[in-house]
Amino acid sequence: MSIYNAPLNDMRFILTDVFKAPEFWQNNDNLAHVDMETVDMILEEMAKLSKNVMLPINRSGDEEGATYQGDGVVTTPEGFKEAYQQYAESGWVGLGGNPEYGGQGFPKMVTMLTEEMVFTTNQSFALYPNLTVGATLCLNAAASEELKQTYLEKMYAGYWSGTMCLTEPHAGTDLGIIKTKAAPNDDGSFSISGTKIFITGGEHDLTENIIHLVLAKTPDAPAGSKGISLFVVPKFLVNEDGSLGARNSVAAGSIEHKMGIKASATCVMNFDDAKGWMVGAENTGLSSMFIMMNYERVTMGLQGLGGSELAYQNAALYALDRAQGRSDTQLQSPEKPADAIIHHADVRRMLLNAKANSEASRCFAMYVAKQLDTEKFSTDPEAAQIAAARVSLLTPVAKAFLTDKALEATIDCQQVFGGHGYVREWGMEQIVRDTRIAQIYEGANGIQALDLLGRKVARNEGKYVINFLGEIRDYVASMSAEHGIKQATLDAAETVEALTKTVLANIGIRKSEINGCAVDYMHAFGYLCYSYMFAMMVEAANGQEGEFYTNKAKLADYFVGRILPRIDAHAQMVKAGSDPMMNFDLKYFGASV
Amino acid sequence: MSIYNAPLNDMRFILTDVFKAPEFWQNNDNLAHVDMETVDMILEEMAKLSKNVMLPINRSGDEEGATYQGDGVVTTPEGFKEAYQQYAESGWVGLGGNPEYGGQGFPKMVTMLTEEMVFTTNQSFALYPNLTVGATLCLNAAASEELKQTYLEKMYAGYWSGTMCLTEPHAGTDLGIIKTKAAPNDDGSFSISGTKIFITGGEHDLTENIIHLVLAKTPDAPAGSKGISLFVVPKFLVNEDGSLGARNSVAAGSIEHKMGIKASATCVMNFDDAKGWMVGAENTGLSSMFIMMNYERVTMGLQGLGGSELAYQNAALYALDRAQGRSDTQLQSPEKPADAIIHHADVRRMLLNAKANSEASRCFAMYVAKQLDTEKFSTDPEAAQIAAARVSLLTPVAKAFLTDKALEATIDCQQVFGGHGYVREWGMEQIVRDTRIAQIYEGANGIQALDLLGRKVARNEGKYVINFLGEIRDYVASMSAEHGIKQATLDAAETVEALTKTVLANIGIRKSEINGCAVDYMHAFGYLCYSYMFAMMVEAANGQEGEFYTNKAKLADYFVGRILPRIDAHAQMVKAGSDPMMNFDLKYFGASV
Repeated sequence: MSIYNAPLNDMRFILTDVFKAPEFWQNNDNLAHVDMETVDMILEEMAKLSKNVMLPINRSGDEEGATYQGDGVVTTPEGFKEAYQQYAESGWVGLGGNPEYGGQGFPKMVTMLTEEMVFTTNQSFALYPNLTVGATLCLNAAASEELKQTYLEKMYAGYWSGTMCLTEPHAGTDLGIIKTKAAPNDDGSFSISGTKIFITGGEHDLTENIIHLVLAKTPDAPAGSKGISLFVVPKFLVNEDGSLGARNSVAAGSIEHKMGIKASATCVMNFDDAKGWMVGAENTGLSSMFIMMNYERVTMGLQGLGGSELAYQNAALYALDRAQGRSDTQLQSPEKPADAIIHHADVRRMLLNAKANSEASRCFAMYVAKQLDTEKFSTDPEAAQIAAARVSLLTPVAKAFLTDKALEATIDCQQVFGGHGYVREWGMEQIVRDTRIAQIYEGANGIQALDLLGRKVARNEGKYVINFLGEIRDYVASMSAEHGIKQATLDAAETVEALTKTVLANIGIRKSEINGCAVDYMHAFGYLCYSYMFAMMVEAANGQEGEFYTNKAKLADYFVGRILPRIDAHAQMVKAGSDPMMNFDLKYFGASV
Repeated sequence: MSIYNAPLNDMRFILTDVFKAPEFWQNNDNLAHVDMETVDMILEEMAKLSKNVMLPINRSGDEEGATYQGDGVVTTPEGFKEAYQQYAESGWVGLGGNPEYGGQGFPKMVTMLTEEMVFTTNQSFALYPNLTVGATLCLNAAASEELKQTYLEKMYAGYWSGTMCLTEPHAGTDLGIIKTKAAPNDDGSFSISGTKIFITGGEHDLTENIIHLVLAKTPDAPAGSKGISLFVVPKFLVNEDGSLGARNSVAAGSIEHKMGIKASATCVMNFDDAKGWMVGAENTGLSSMFIMMNYERVTMGLQGLGGSELAYQNAALYALDRAQGRSDTQLQSPEKPADAIIHHADVRRMLLNAKANSEASRCFAMYVAKQLDTEKFSTDPEAAQIAAARVSLLTPVAKAFLTDKALEATIDCQQVFGGHGYVREWGMEQIVRDTRIAQIYEGANGIQALDLLGRKVARNEGKYVINFLGEIRDYVASMSAEHGIKQATLDAAETVEALTKTVLANIGIRKSEINGCAVDYMHAFGYLCYSYMFAMMVEAANGQEGEFYTNKAKLADYFVGRILPRIDAHAQMVKAGSDPMMNFDLKYFGASV
């Protein structure tokens, strides 16, 4: 029932007008093979595929769900196999993959847009190839040449899919306490035993093999997160000629019944002396995983963006159609008993919250993607290093802020539908349910905020932030556009600077300060990032003819007046510190038990 | 899997320490029959019933859902019939009913607490008796003596249930455009024909008869909302002796498949020359409905409170039990690999958001309930009139603000569970899904905000607000407690006063101003109300011995530092006005279609 038209004009505007992608690619030897004509074709192809193939199985996939058939067999809902086949055969899994192993080598600035379209039209479906991409990033960065030769090509081609097996029943955020064991065999392989939970795509019927990346502890590993190694554990062992051999002793024990992303199989995986091979050096498993985390976490932000975009498009359509009450400003449809609800300012408020979120999210994801691509592809080591620092700072924001704001956007758009928004048939409530997971998995948003304030801000005494604030101020100073976004962005930068100083000063006084202030700091920081993005969009649109461009300035007006003021509330809450939480005795929280 | 222990201490604190209910009842002739000993027994009984009967069928009811069996037959999930029977036989439906017709005459200050407990443990279940209570309120206030004699006693006894049939496929918020027709018959009855949707409890297997209150238009009714009459339409006609007669021609055509409250049957009701009797005078149907709306809308706030309370209790329990990572302040469980997550300030932040919301919600609902009871029972006409004005002003806040904040609270508490919060088995995601409806039905929250800013503030030029602000300032001035809540409340009052002036001044300039500012005004207003409630709770706890009381001040500290600052963001957004929304051309919103 949902509609979707890929926002190709917005995507091109951000790629070319805002971030000057074609110049960026031309000026970089490692990206000189990328040109806008090809990228345009790619975007148009994905616009069609996502609209015509992924969207039609989004509602039905939610109703049917992935199914555990017993004996370790999991099936995906009707239509998923065919859709996946089409997706894989068109080469989408390997779009950003390493060309040495059959990947197509496109930068994140391109793949983020195709990923957005898949997440927009079918969040459950998107996760299957997404986990594969994550696993290939990890293998490509950390695995031996032999392992890369064995796995990457088949995975890029979509014949085999990938998983990440981190969480255990007692160990989620805290991976240092995992219990899965890896005992060395004489042939250099390991025997992996343990139980992993919440494994996205751990078992399904889409591919002929499933390649698990598994965190486990070797016999003499040190305690905690420094004693974790990473292993590749295929569902079917791979013969020397690349054909599939015996079934490995890893199997799904059950799948979770969840709030949303029901067509995505979330599995309990049992490893029972399963054969695995170590990826990278012993006890460096977590850092191998984190190699690809930055690249991946931005993708979770794109999942949020997808929810926000689909919710907006459908709510806008509904608001244009649904007649209820009369416009305050002037009678719109005198021949009808009521005017369309789009004429009510409050309905527009809900829609514009989502629209502004989608545009700012996309722009911010592209900003981070450009930094990621600079880090990965630049021939200038200094530029790569600066970009890496920026990526490090902004990744938790891209994951957490984008998904937090996305949930709000989906709720606003659901609200536009009134009672119909609560009925499954209309599809709006599914978007809310599906989008909700993005705030939780891949490091819950509270953990992302701790990463930002603890590791990326406090640990280097604010250096990364100060550099970023400098860039923002320089940018605003260089703008030729005249618009309220300029002063608003400078004010937001000042707020974040003051806040950073406050927190850094308080850490010595209150040990719980980072933990207690992280989420509100992250939100304040996120609003600053959005403001910076709107400044860039205003500047890129400035002086160009047509409503498409003048509307960019209007949306920035909306952002400044009706969204950005939230930054001050978060700033005040950070300043209140962690004492208001920590003053309570433990038993206060047990009073109702 | 969920736990629940009714917060009886908090309830008693609010009833007796904060609002001095026993004195209030003693000093009022119409309420002199109510005493605290009886009320205590009532609360304790409901604490047991809700915990032992409603809670155990909450998850199973969600999984099974209400079922449409075809031919107009709807069944409730397993256990609902037995639970309802027990509920009805114990006299709960008629607890607040008119004693002249078999009700027990308890005031809202008491029934709101029992309603809270039912909503906390089973939102779907709660709706069945709740709609009956709503219908009896309406009949009691507006129906003829004959109709009251026919229906009230059976409904109070729970033998018959009630519905409110307002919405039609094309008419939800805008009831002026309903199409259901009422043609007069010779015997004084009417033939009702039309289709109503979203009818909670429209059909089910809990009671032997279902009494529909239906909005319809008589043949020569004026257009719009001034031409709506109200009719009582029983599923089974009632014989003169009170026994059930022939089946009336009203039937459920289907039920909705919804995001949540799945055990509550939401029906499409088809009226095909169904026999009905007019309630009140012709063309006064909407005002008859609104007689009971104020009394009922507070109950929707209680639904939100219920979600918030259940989410808090379960998240607190989980946070005390789940070990993950180490405390920032000091090692807590050296013998275990990790400390309980309750030691993390950010986990406490999420819990305290919910806890503060629950306590402020309950207090505010009690404040409004006391006004409702004053309006209904007071022997002093002036006091009743002042209370009526207060009720009129605060009802939309009790409905919209409490449910908006409740959804946030349930999401925060779900987040405490990490991935487990997303899995159905744990019950947290159900609370989010169930609570979501309270923002939508019974007048969507945007409409409540319009009611507040349009009808209750602008239409009387802020008079109601000014009176309320005066009361708040007088109260703060009279406080003997020393606490930051005092200045915070005065500041919040000033914010709302300034905001009211700003909006009133801008109405003349921008016609869309009320519509565009209503929701943010409502939120600013809501935070002021919460602040006032915390002031009252701090004052009531002041000087009393024991942690229960000192924790009230600590929770108020948390509110002042970590919640209330949001008021400034909403104030700024109101000041930005409606231009940022209205500046867009209509086609902007159609760009993606």
